[in-house]
Amino acid sequence: MDNPRSDRVRSVSSLSKRSVRTRTGRFAVEGPQGVREAVRHAPARVRDVYLTAEALDRYADDIVAPARAAALWVHEVTPEVLAAMAETDAPQGVLAVVDTTSPSLDDVLAAGPRLLVLLSHVRDPGNAGTVIRGADAAGADAVLVSEASVDVHSSKVVRSTAGSLFHLPVVTGLDVAATLARLRGAGVRTYAADGSGTTLLPDADLTGPHCWVMGNEAWGLPDEVRDACDDVVRVPIHGLAESLNLAMAATICLYASAGRREDWAADG
Amino acid sequence: MDNPRSDRVRSVSSLSKRSVRTRTGRFAVEGPQGVREAVRHAPARVRDVYLTAEALDRYADDIVAPARAAALWVHEVTPEVLAAMAETDAPQGVLAVVDTTSPSLDDVLAAGPRLLVLLSHVRDPGNAGTVIRGADAAGADAVLVSEASVDVHSSKVVRSTAGSLFHLPVVTGLDVAATLARLRGAGVRTYAADGSGTTLLPDADLTGPHCWVMGNEAWGLPDEVRDACDDVVRVPIHGLAESLNLAMAATICLYASAGRREDWAADG
Repeated sequence: MDNPRSDRVRSVSSLSKRSVRTRTGRFAVEGPQGVREAVRHAPARVRDVYLTAEALDRYADDIVAPARAAALWVHEVTPEVLAAMAETDAPQGVLAVVDTTSPSLDDVLAAGPRLLVLLSHVRDPGNAGTVIRGADAAGADAVLVSEASVDVHSSKVVRSTAGSLFHLPVVTGLDVAATLARLRGAGVRTYAADGSGTTLLPDADLTGPHCWVMGNEAWGLPDEVRDACDDVVRVPIHGLAESLNLAMAATICLYASAGRREDWAADG
Repeated sequence: MDNPRSDRVRSVSSLSKRSVRTRTGRFAVEGPQGVREAVRHAPARVRDVYLTAEALDRYADDIVAPARAAALWVHEVTPEVLAAMAETDAPQGVLAVVDTTSPSLDDVLAAGPRLLVLLSHVRDPGNAGTVIRGADAAGADAVLVSEASVDVHSSKVVRSTAGSLFHLPVVTGLDVAATLARLRGAGVRTYAADGSGTTLLPDADLTGPHCWVMGNEAWGLPDEVRDACDDVVRVPIHGLAESLNLAMAATICLYASAGRREDWAADG
């Protein structure tokens, strides 16, 4: 493909709009790391892979070969076409169009999860993406995202997950109150991570199945959400800092959970 | 002040350039959180505080009163002047000009530090700022920053420290090899945080004085730096993620250190 003004190019570049992603059920993954992880871990969701000639060569083994083995459409495009498709400045010659299909909360609960995180009205793409990446690294079973949160299929979130978006189920559009009730019904304890908590993180009971509940960057968790959780847990602040940012607090909580699991004492 | 084109306004807005910060030894702090922490914790470094009429009223207690008590210059400016001075879009009517003066490594070592973090060639402002904030929250004694790292007085770093820049010493411009040697001489163990490490974080000896050494976002730590450290420590990855980002890894390491200190078992 060499025409940056073709309908195909326009339709890919229009995926930068949330409304188009919602209508088409597709989103763009830009750059080799994200595309590689999508091809490896979610090939059934990958519609098309676009690479420049240079990228076809450079990523022959870790993107092109597995994509062809999975019978995916692999297209060579000119650098101009790739630039016209991409939202980011430097997709390094690689872009894929992927279905937004997400699993349901039912699916996640049916698998008997041990560690979850619920993002309640989280708006910052970098925070959301970093929490998804941290949840993956900590061995969480899924990430739950409330309605009115940032779109996890926006390019900034996708990029900051560093491929983790394709490593674990990310359930979106959830009602927070209903989700907390479902979790309780499934035997998953819910812990609001909040600076107002009276339970310090080192004292929280992290042995059984549980879900960290993280609030909005600016205003935290509303009272009714905190009240609906089994406990409100605070990360200790030792210095003069007022608080930690959302992604840091989530990462610390998730790693505390990982550290308490005896079957995880070794690596992995 | 009501002339957005005055020399004073130009001189403040020119602090967005690193060369001007270096030449003048001053930088701008934008927004109420950073300015409040500067006024509270580093008043001797604050040159001028600029507020709009609305901000003078809103922050009367937590910025204006302590600034006047410290005999600082407090100036009322029009919203147009503040906007012309500021680099960020929304400084919420508050800006301060502060000296970049930083303590020396000698000062830090003379205080008998227990927990330090050294950023080696860290380039991303958000990462650097988040590590400074996390180091503050974890009760670290100082943050050490190598030469060829991002300027910690740039507006993005300042903003992402959320005021922590004024809570603990941040030493800049350090030579990494010389610093590692100085730390060893001072009885501070050095731990490279790196995915190549054979010691897992839960197994690291975090009881004595130590310093976490964090590498560049893209290429990590060079061999000679890893070799010069007492140990290379890896944060366990439990899921499919390849790695954690720099700020997350640093936060997990720093909180692991905080958690091992018996005198910190309580909060603070």
